[in-house]
Amino acid sequence: MTAPETLRFENHRLILIDQTKLPGELTELVCTSVAQTHDAIRRLVVRGAPAIGIAAAYGVCLAVPADETGTPGRSRYIDAIESLATSRPTAVNLFWALDRMRQIVDSTPEAELKDALVAEATRIHEEDRQMCHAIGRNGAPLLADVQTVLTHCNAGGLATSTWGTALAPIYHLHQTGDAPKVIADETRPLLQGGRLTAWELSQAGVDVTVITDSMSGSLMRLGKIQAVIVGADRITARGDVANKIGTYPVAVLAKHHGLPFYVAAPTNTFDLQLDCGDDIPIEQRGREEVAAPHGVRIVPDAADVLNPAFDVTPAELVTAIITERGVIKQPSRDAVAEHFANA
Amino acid sequence: MTAPETLRFENHRLILIDQTKLPGELTELVCTSVAQTHDAIRRLVVRGAPAIGIAAAYGVCLAVPADETGTPGRSRYIDAIESLATSRPTAVNLFWALDRMRQIVDSTPEAELKDALVAEATRIHEEDRQMCHAIGRNGAPLLADVQTVLTHCNAGGLATSTWGTALAPIYHLHQTGDAPKVIADETRPLLQGGRLTAWELSQAGVDVTVITDSMSGSLMRLGKIQAVIVGADRITARGDVANKIGTYPVAVLAKHHGLPFYVAAPTNTFDLQLDCGDDIPIEQRGREEVAAPHGVRIVPDAADVLNPAFDVTPAELVTAIITERGVIKQPSRDAVAEHFANA
Repeated sequence: MTAPETLRFENHRLILIDQTKLPGELTELVCTSVAQTHDAIRRLVVRGAPAIGIAAAYGVCLAVPADETGTPGRSRYIDAIESLATSRPTAVNLFWALDRMRQIVDSTPEAELKDALVAEATRIHEEDRQMCHAIGRNGAPLLADVQTVLTHCNAGGLATSTWGTALAPIYHLHQTGDAPKVIADETRPLLQGGRLTAWELSQAGVDVTVITDSMSGSLMRLGKIQAVIVGADRITARGDVANKIGTYPVAVLAKHHGLPFYVAAPTNTFDLQLDCGDDIPIEQRGREEVAAPHGVRIVPDAADVLNPAFDVTPAELVTAIITERGVIKQPSRDAVAEHFANA
Repeated sequence: MTAPETLRFENHRLILIDQTKLPGELTELVCTSVAQTHDAIRRLVVRGAPAIGIAAAYGVCLAVPADETGTPGRSRYIDAIESLATSRPTAVNLFWALDRMRQIVDSTPEAELKDALVAEATRIHEEDRQMCHAIGRNGAPLLADVQTVLTHCNAGGLATSTWGTALAPIYHLHQTGDAPKVIADETRPLLQGGRLTAWELSQAGVDVTVITDSMSGSLMRLGKIQAVIVGADRITARGDVANKIGTYPVAVLAKHHGLPFYVAAPTNTFDLQLDCGDDIPIEQRGREEVAAPHGVRIVPDAADVLNPAFDVTPAELVTAIITERGVIKQPSRDAVAEHFANA
């Protein structure tokens, strides 16, 4: 894959590809403070559940500047963790990563805290790289005989540190010789599919075709799609999946056409405290993303607008969940519990 | 309804609301030639199956200028009919209207042709007005107890001469006191729902909320939609429905959630020569509508794009078709035949 790294931490600075500018411009945003990191997550400069977790972990380190001497104390890190936890509500990886950072804060002598936190964030980042490749290996057999696969939103390298989740099996097959063709839903309102998935797959030399979100149904009816694979922002104990708005209708369409619907996500996407998907808090975003994309007013002011950022796909519609540990077939409370018990 | 007329014919000029400019600007385009009319239909200045038919009928009249003296002869009208038939391929009302004009050309003495063609186009226009109101009356009972109805694209006044087809029952109920709330799919790529349906309904004082095309599924799952109503561009003898891309997935979602899916269209939308929806020619439009909406490049050049303008919903997914003559419940070859036999 030739695309640059989604995010990196260098000289106590968090450097992010500014994903709001893609595909028009490939630029980087440098964060040197917690507030900048919070803003970057909120504005979707960095997005995708795993990438948000990594960025937030590094963001905690930025609570104390590189050149500050002396022992910083725990409270500034705790404030940073509490602040970053408010940046976005739905993806559970954010809270998971911040919990890991909090454990370091709580368990490390103050004098060692600065280095220990950077080390932990770096571990989270490195584990994410390994997770992507493991998901790629685990998911590849499911797509090996598929000619064309549909994906929604961006659960690729730009949503993680390297290969992504949903796209990892495709990159794996591409490296080993024979990737399926990819159809990418553009994913209104923010067009992560048209902008980001199409960009990173075409950079990597994978055949990708963009459609509007309304076209996948008839392509399925005409036999032009053989499988669906998407990422996830949160998965409950019974296997319900919160993911980008528009995922649920694709799952219903896959079911109607007898196509497999795969979800690829690391185990840290599971929120085993929640049983039912309807308990997942769904981020409601502003009117303008729908009503005035790129500043062009397309909806009259007199009309209302809804803009939920995520929807919930019940486990019954999911053929399998692919994690870094393996594959959960026909997800259910028991199947998920077994997957975690076998860890 | 306070919205101005979608199209009118005055002083031998065809005057169209330029629907490509809505909702930002309310401007009119004046056509004084066949070529201008062809271009206006192709560019979607005027769109919606019934409105295309009326515009094309008036366009035939423009083959001969108002101030031309003498007897024009049939061939220029025949050339106009043949030209206008190439403006768009899917909506059958276009061909139906042009056939009516052709019959006038073939059956009228040359000296009377100019007036006879204007009279026929005017009749087509007037019949459309009556059709809209009849569909409104016939469809109103189906929506009378519905709190919120979903519609896709624009099958309203802007797609016809007055009340539209899918929106006619809503306007009827609004006039008689109690219209359902409307959720309008924005309808990518050309956003006829966000731009046009939202505009005309809010102008008329009907409560309307715009969503992206990917949101209707979860609203149905959450019980926030009780029925769907859409228009049609062509309906076959067995009741298969070609309509704006994105209609088919909405029909599948309605079925999945046990919601009624209604199609409202005049009888001239039926193409009884075709049995199966897969025989309907589907217009494939250009890349830029998907890849660069409003001139903003959102899809990288290296990615392919598909842009079919319509999809086909099989009759099995349609609860009822509402025409100006009545309601075809559970459309099938027999039910459609009976509807036409009872004319």
